[in-house]
Amino acid sequence: MKHDYVDIDTLKFLLYNVHQTEDLLSRERFSDYDITSIDIFIDSVKTFSDTALFPFIKDMDEKPSYFKDGKINVHPQFENIIKTGGEMGFVGLGFDYDDGGMQMPSTIFHAAYFIMEAANNHVPGYFGLTAGSANLILSFGSQMLKNTYVPNMLDLTWGGTMCLTEPQAGSSLSDVKTTASPTSEDYYLIKGQKIFISAGDHQFSSNFVHLVLARVYGAPSGIKGVSLFVVPKKRPTQNGELVYNSADIVGEFEKMGQKGYCTTHIVFGDNDNCRGWLVGEPNKGLSYMFQMMNEARIATGRMGTAIASAAYYSSLKYANERPQGRKLNRSGQKNAEEEQTLIINHPDIKRMLFSQKAIVEGSMSLIFQTSNYFDKEITSTSDEEKEKYNLLLELLTPIAKTYPAEKGIESTSNAIQILGGYGFCFDFMPQQYYRDIRIIALYEGTTGIQSLDLLGRKITEQNGKALELLAEEIQQTIKEANSYDDLKPYAAILLENLGLVKKVMNILMPHALKGNFERFLADATVFMNFLGTIVVGWQWLKIANKATQVLEKKNVNLPNEFYKSKIHTMKFFYTYEMTRTKGLAKTLMNNEELTISVPNDIF
Amino acid sequence: MKHDYVDIDTLKFLLYNVHQTEDLLSRERFSDYDITSIDIFIDSVKTFSDTALFPFIKDMDEKPSYFKDGKINVHPQFENIIKTGGEMGFVGLGFDYDDGGMQMPSTIFHAAYFIMEAANNHVPGYFGLTAGSANLILSFGSQMLKNTYVPNMLDLTWGGTMCLTEPQAGSSLSDVKTTASPTSEDYYLIKGQKIFISAGDHQFSSNFVHLVLARVYGAPSGIKGVSLFVVPKKRPTQNGELVYNSADIVGEFEKMGQKGYCTTHIVFGDNDNCRGWLVGEPNKGLSYMFQMMNEARIATGRMGTAIASAAYYSSLKYANERPQGRKLNRSGQKNAEEEQTLIINHPDIKRMLFSQKAIVEGSMSLIFQTSNYFDKEITSTSDEEKEKYNLLLELLTPIAKTYPAEKGIESTSNAIQILGGYGFCFDFMPQQYYRDIRIIALYEGTTGIQSLDLLGRKITEQNGKALELLAEEIQQTIKEANSYDDLKPYAAILLENLGLVKKVMNILMPHALKGNFERFLADATVFMNFLGTIVVGWQWLKIANKATQVLEKKNVNLPNEFYKSKIHTMKFFYTYEMTRTKGLAKTLMNNEELTISVPNDIF
Repeated sequence: MKHDYVDIDTLKFLLYNVHQTEDLLSRERFSDYDITSIDIFIDSVKTFSDTALFPFIKDMDEKPSYFKDGKINVHPQFENIIKTGGEMGFVGLGFDYDDGGMQMPSTIFHAAYFIMEAANNHVPGYFGLTAGSANLILSFGSQMLKNTYVPNMLDLTWGGTMCLTEPQAGSSLSDVKTTASPTSEDYYLIKGQKIFISAGDHQFSSNFVHLVLARVYGAPSGIKGVSLFVVPKKRPTQNGELVYNSADIVGEFEKMGQKGYCTTHIVFGDNDNCRGWLVGEPNKGLSYMFQMMNEARIATGRMGTAIASAAYYSSLKYANERPQGRKLNRSGQKNAEEEQTLIINHPDIKRMLFSQKAIVEGSMSLIFQTSNYFDKEITSTSDEEKEKYNLLLELLTPIAKTYPAEKGIESTSNAIQILGGYGFCFDFMPQQYYRDIRIIALYEGTTGIQSLDLLGRKITEQNGKALELLAEEIQQTIKEANSYDDLKPYAAILLENLGLVKKVMNILMPHALKGNFERFLADATVFMNFLGTIVVGWQWLKIANKATQVLEKKNVNLPNEFYKSKIHTMKFFYTYEMTRTKGLAKTLMNNEELTISVPNDIF
Repeated sequence: MKHDYVDIDTLKFLLYNVHQTEDLLSRERFSDYDITSIDIFIDSVKTFSDTALFPFIKDMDEKPSYFKDGKINVHPQFENIIKTGGEMGFVGLGFDYDDGGMQMPSTIFHAAYFIMEAANNHVPGYFGLTAGSANLILSFGSQMLKNTYVPNMLDLTWGGTMCLTEPQAGSSLSDVKTTASPTSEDYYLIKGQKIFISAGDHQFSSNFVHLVLARVYGAPSGIKGVSLFVVPKKRPTQNGELVYNSADIVGEFEKMGQKGYCTTHIVFGDNDNCRGWLVGEPNKGLSYMFQMMNEARIATGRMGTAIASAAYYSSLKYANERPQGRKLNRSGQKNAEEEQTLIINHPDIKRMLFSQKAIVEGSMSLIFQTSNYFDKEITSTSDEEKEKYNLLLELLTPIAKTYPAEKGIESTSNAIQILGGYGFCFDFMPQQYYRDIRIIALYEGTTGIQSLDLLGRKITEQNGKALELLAEEIQQTIKEANSYDDLKPYAAILLENLGLVKKVMNILMPHALKGNFERFLADATVFMNFLGTIVVGWQWLKIANKATQVLEKKNVNLPNEFYKSKIHTMKFFYTYEMTRTKGLAKTLMNNEELTISVPNDIF
């Protein structure tokens, strides 16, 4: 088998052909790059992943990060990973040249992280959170904050984190209680505690820069009173020394998966001298944080997709090597004298492999689509274009986070199932991927939160303009598909589904217009499942269009079978997945209100 | 919260009202029992589970069974469990009085095990496998085998196992290679190895009785040459001593879940003197084993249901205690001055709780329905009745195994989701249940194997007679529901689904009749999902019928709300689950053959 965890040909086909990287590279911001330089970059990431990441994923599960004597200890291989990752510039891939970055399109940035996460999902969060927090400082921080913190973060000498969650307030950020008291100096005194802080500490970076949500004394209640602070683990003095700043690691959450990726508990200001520096203006913390959150949501979906990719290739390898059972002959019997056949020859195994392939590659395409909108937004030259891509980006972000999370569970479960009893055993990888991926639906806003965001905010904003823009994009793909006979039936299904979305919205919107938001949003998660399936169906038709086009124009640089397999998998998706949408629509249009206004003791 | 892992009121309502235990008890075999004595028995099992099982489930996960110096060591609490379980007679619950059993209906037997498994799913397999193997000896073994082995198994002085799987042949039992060479004595010499042997060894039983599938020298190839042997770990001599029998434990499989329930690797006959005694006639081993397998399949589904039950109550408790977030007001805003609300007040949390309740209680009902057919079969006085119940039992068995396995994964995943980030952490139980339940779809024939059995054997036998009988049973429930106005719409949906089953079979059967079995069975797993959903929908309508009837007749012994909650949950099932069947039918009726005759390198 040629792939251990990712298929680079598919990744490049999605990037270059389906999502037309060259178009992006023609924009001024990215004009230093061409396909050749991107190719070289991607291949170098793959080499790094093959050698420094993939060989250690099992060992990181077996030797989890742990808390001892006020410190978090991560797997020893992180020494090499942090050093090399810093040297390779993974933190600043998307940053401006002026900020020490590489000014790469985010689509390419995500592709690189995808490869690393598929190789070892316990790792890239250490890079990504440092990138996200450095980016927040660059976007909204003072020149002093930029100068003091960013250079050391760029090469991972210092790590970065985002500190949102508190014990009494998980998803409910309006209940943040950590306080920030102004002083006569340029800093505030921070006091409070934060939990579930990913990449919060380890022995291979000399300092950590925490981006902390806190409430300035006297600030309004709710999210309108939340500000953002830079709170270093150790504060740098004028002469460059690092001084204790009372940001204490007090514990590590022990988890069922992603054990190499630490999840810490931090107490700020136990000695009443924890200093934090305000980022931007007071009480605007949540809006700043959302820049990071939105990137992190795409990144989380990407990570889910990457784990599912690794599980897929792990089960594919097994299916190609394991003999078991025989085919039935014309009289429905098996001939026990025959050699056993490889299990990949059983249709049910193929069904489970196709299901994984359809979820993994469809999700990859969705991640690239979403980040493509991001790149187009930031490089747009007109306000109108900028707004269009912003709306599309905002609409797709919760879907790009959730579809890979939820369907990724199913996908990795199929990987286990292909291995039979061995799938449940520690000797094989699928059980680890299955444990690892379960966090994805919880990180960065649970599926429920994403679904409220999708239906309650993204869909309704500006009278549904984002959904209209999406429908236009989808119509474009349908139109293209209609020029290929083989694809017409699938274009028709997608069109029918667009109509179904409209029908569902016609039933749901009146509840919102009447102010009955509880009713409007009660089945938001079902809506997410519904629209997510259609959006990935759109991605698959887009993939099939491109594959067909390449084959017709004989513009291939891979065997014809590669492109045909994409068309075949599109058909699988439409036959086994798109068939679910009508039932989901029916659930969404029910008028029983079964989950509303029933007493809690009904259970 | 009153329930930690199971709701005994629901269990008794399903047993006594929905599945009419009294009807069973009126049959001669069970006539020593009445509802009062069954009540006392169930309550004693609950007390045992509360004190000896539930408090240890977390610790069994943290201190797994392990292999050392040729022996398996299980958690120390098993000393008490094995002793008390033996005394309480859990092995012989269903056995004849003459065999030292309690001659209880299997429906009650399953209810008792359900409670124990919900309390601690790592435990009851030790009882159940001993029961199953003793039952095999009683059913098919010689008087000598019965006398020698069964008495010691009844009180768990000795444990019993079933040894089917070999490394080179997982699900493919026709490839069993373990050999049995006849000797001039009454025993054979056994040589080979078996893997994945649940409850294969531990320090608290003095001997183990392995029921081993092996091939007598010169036997036909395939399943027709497989015989069944009793192979004791230590063989008893005339004077009652136990002698080494070369049935060596060589390892323990380390698993992602159910870690307290050992999974061993056994090598037979390394010294060429492992003695085994033939059970029944040669070459009929698989047909004998299938008696045990069929019971074990229902038991496995029961175990899945029980794990999902425990996860449900664990997440329900959290939802009732955890404040987070606020309701939206009429202008779609939240008032941050308000106290946070309990998360159970959010519709999305209620949706996840109802989904769990619908899966758990629907599956429980399915297990009782299936075992009810078993009890009716064995107590039938006419051949016709016996055949009817046998066909219904055989048809439902693979569904009763698979529905709780597959939907139980979804159900426990919802339990995690309700806890948010905490759900992923070892401090809370849902993550353990989620890991534990993943084995259920693999034990005793994977979902793929069960689905082939359902569509390829149970549905087609006798020209589809079993499915006809099932349709009659379902029609009976529909008829009853039609006498209650509130239930009529759901009766109509169930009737429509019965029509859909016919429609699907009309498309599928011609493939079988033409001898194209590969095509016929390609989507057997989808068919399982389809029919399983409808069968559980039937169970829910049956439950709602009974609840409505009890309320109308004011024949309640629990608050009205209890019965109303059943009707409400039925509505939930029909609104959120039965809506899936049309899409599945569409997949089943597709004519694309996407998983057949495609090259293996398409992936």
